[in-house]
Amino acid sequence: MDIYKTLREEAFEANQEIPRRNLAIYTWGNVSAYDPGKGVFAIKPSGVAYESLCPQDMVLVDLDGTILDGAYRPSSDTPTHRVLYREFSGIRGICHTHSTYAVAWAQARKSVPVLGTTHADHGAQPIPCTEVLNEEALRNDYELETGNLIVKTYRKDRMDPAHITMVLVAGHGPFTWGKNAAESVYHGAVLEEICKMALLTLSLNPAAEALPGHIIRKHWERKHGSGAYYGQAISC
Amino acid sequence: MDIYKTLREEAFEANQEIPRRNLAIYTWGNVSAYDPGKGVFAIKPSGVAYESLCPQDMVLVDLDGTILDGAYRPSSDTPTHRVLYREFSGIRGICHTHSTYAVAWAQARKSVPVLGTTHADHGAQPIPCTEVLNEEALRNDYELETGNLIVKTYRKDRMDPAHITMVLVAGHGPFTWGKNAAESVYHGAVLEEICKMALLTLSLNPAAEALPGHIIRKHWERKHGSGAYYGQAISC
Amino acid sequence: MDIYKTLREEAFEANQEIPRRNLAIYTWGNVSAYDPGKGVFAIKPSGVAYESLCPQDMVLVDLDGTILDGAYRPSSDTPTHRVLYREFSGIRGICHTHSTYAVAWAQARKSVPVLGTTHADHGAQPIPCTEVLNEEALRNDYELETGNLIVKTYRKDRMDPAHITMVLVAGHGPFTWGKNAAESVYHGAVLEEICKMALLTLSLNPAAEALPGHIIRKHWERKHGSGAYYGQAISC
Amino acid sequence: MDIYKTLREEAFEANQEIPRRNLAIYTWGNVSAYDPGKGVFAIKPSGVAYESLCPQDMVLVDLDGTILDGAYRPSSDTPTHRVLYREFSGIRGICHTHSTYAVAWAQARKSVPVLGTTHADHGAQPIPCTEVLNEEALRNDYELETGNLIVKTYRKDRMDPAHITMVLVAGHGPFTWGKNAAESVYHGAVLEEICKMALLTLSLNPAAEALPGHIIRKHWERKHGSGAYYGQAISC
Repeated sequence: MDIYKTLREEAFEANQEIPRRNLAIYTWGNVSAYDPGKGVFAIKPSGVAYESLCPQDMVLVDLDGTILDGAYRPSSDTPTHRVLYREFSGIRGICHTHSTYAVAWAQARKSVPVLGTTHADHGAQPIPCTEVLNEEALRNDYELETGNLIVKTYRKDRMDPAHITMVLVAGHGPFTWGKNAAESVYHGAVLEEICKMALLTLSLNPAAEALPGHIIRKHWERKHGSGAYYGQAISC
Repeated sequence: MDIYKTLREEAFEANQEIPRRNLAIYTWGNVSAYDPGKGVFAIKPSGVAYESLCPQDMVLVDLDGTILDGAYRPSSDTPTHRVLYREFSGIRGICHTHSTYAVAWAQARKSVPVLGTTHADHGAQPIPCTEVLNEEALRNDYELETGNLIVKTYRKDRMDPAHITMVLVAGHGPFTWGKNAAESVYHGAVLEEICKMALLTLSLNPAAEALPGHIIRKHWERKHGSGAYYGQAISC
Repeated sequence: MDIYKTLREEAFEANQEIPRRNLAIYTWGNVSAYDPGKGVFAIKPSGVAYESLCPQDMVLVDLDGTILDGAYRPSSDTPTHRVLYREFSGIRGICHTHSTYAVAWAQARKSVPVLGTTHADHGAQPIPCTEVLNEEALRNDYELETGNLIVKTYRKDRMDPAHITMVLVAGHGPFTWGKNAAESVYHGAVLEEICKMALLTLSLNPAAEALPGHIIRKHWERKHGSGAYYGQAISC
Repeated sequence: MDIYKTLREEAFEANQEIPRRNLAIYTWGNVSAYDPGKGVFAIKPSGVAYESLCPQDMVLVDLDGTILDGAYRPSSDTPTHRVLYREFSGIRGICHTHSTYAVAWAQARKSVPVLGTTHADHGAQPIPCTEVLNEEALRNDYELETGNLIVKTYRKDRMDPAHITMVLVAGHGPFTWGKNAAESVYHGAVLEEICKMALLTLSLNPAAEALPGHIIRKHWERKHGSGAYYGQAISC
């Protein structure tokens, strides 16, 4: 019996969403699904096309990086996932893509201001952009230090990864997460749309102002607060 | 017998047009269909994916907000629809989306000037952008006051909602309406295209001038005036 | 026997290309096919959706505007087609759309400079943009005078409609033509792509220079000159 | 027996990727597959639509330009392919398209700076843009001299075509290559995405800085260096 069957399937399904949502061409993205009880996540194998994947191809890795099962090498970004699962408690899925508009903001090295309710519905603060990884960290362990860089960015500004589920790694691209693998890809697609809207807004009005705090809080609260009334009480 | 059968089906069909026309990803839009004889409208349930909807899922609501029938919560934007049906007599369908270019203009907080005949074919004036909703109104009843804000914007400038069937809520996105639910989505798709054309025009020529009044009037009149000659006498 | 059968089918097929090539949403475009021997063209009926058309729906019109056959009203732009067939000898198909990037240039009221070989392959000069139609002409006969405006633009600068098969009507959108209806739509799609490339080029480099004359001439000649060697001697 | 069967099929399959990846409309692109043992390449016939091609239609040409087999004329760009196969040893596939964003950079006559890891994953230097071909070279042999211009651009800056597999011909568009025809199209699609990301980045931040050298080298090395660990040891 395969004790990782559900985890593999969850990771497999979420990876299939990347090309369906046009979040990456070729193999430029990866999703993992984490089981905190087992301390194990299933992740896409490195460099394999989405359309040739099956659930069995997902690689099982623990938080120390030991490969528990899998015929393939895991995604080269696996150490970044490990750091985020260890440091950001409560998250159970991580998605990394090279989606076009999110990469543009990451390459411009700019945080995305809260310009409208589409953004506020999914986070009450700007989407942070990290600093560029320095050479010493890179020489130590590039992908692991990319995870550390994200964590440092959150700690420095006391941001809560349960509230801001999207980050841009400067000069690279987005990482997003969620309460499961599917939600991490949902956040990846939302981020891409927010980034496109924000770029177009600034092209129309370079001095566009952030949404006032009362509207930001309202949109966040109606979807995520204790009295949330968006959506259905029982998910459908 | 279901006395709301036609209304449900009209609302259901119009909601399906949102993803078909790429006017929103996920669940980011809603359409309602109104029967003025009954004083009742059918609206999309909140947060339910378009592809899993069926006509029975539409929620029936009257103009006071009483839910007459439906297993689901109605769209969180329902009070905005209520205000518009009450105040803008003659409209029988309303569409709200987060379509990308319309949101960019709403976030830039700019009305869309009449730059060409594509716009003039669907409205002889700029597409208005409201002010940002103030904190007091928001605390009172956010979605209801969003409706009031739209109405106030029209009253202030004596705009006729039968002629300008599209509005941008600042920092949020578009609401459009029509003589039935299908036409409200048609206006949503038209607005998105007008907003894209206008943004690209200004990127080519930041000083682009509005279309002269005689051409604006001509295009409006040939489609909507008493001597209209666009289209067929009997619709086909 | 239907003596217009071939003409209807040619016009029908070419109209179907408009939505396939994303040159217009809804009913925002029309193509006609002209038979100079008969002095008659077949054109799309006004305001009818492409997907509900059949060849029988095409309207047959002569150069004086007399409707020879057809259950529907012809396109409201029919008088523009009439003028172009009369004044630009040799053309046998005309296409009008509201394609997004071509409309942006028309609304910006700018001719499209020859920035690269994609343009030069299809025309050795800038794509002209007309002046805005004046009020007197508009009051006389809007669509007919739109045709006259295009003709005047060509005569003024001694442009040859056999060489420059694309024009932008200021504040409106593109008209394109060709040796048959299919080629007129091909030119519509080419124009849209040229307009997109040119807009993006200027966004990267507002001072981008036109292609030197020797390359423009070479690309035009290798496709259209007496010694043309692009393509096959016998079309395939 | 057809000794070119495999070469024809490789070229045919790679040409089909051009429309699938949206790298050109109509017939605006061509791919060839080269067999260095035979000194022969198979290339798309000129001006024939992708959807009507079959493997037998590919034209077999040697490095002197002699047509060894084929019912059609080869692509008009065939002399450019000949020069590149002769001068850039080791390449076995070449792709030329008019993809939109790559053409925009070529028309802007700008090399594409390394702004992020998407670029660095595929090349550790800017993507070069040639000078504009001068009139003398053009009169001699346009397509052959286009090849010479590319070679000169590489020699002048001592660039290695095995490392920088993409080039922009000023005022024209991209040529890309690879270890087989499929990889040359892959590089064509990658280039288009890199060009789109770079244009959007500069629209957000005109002063966007290049990625630091240590990250550029890292991304290049992890995919292409002696200790590469991206992807699978055995391709899958």
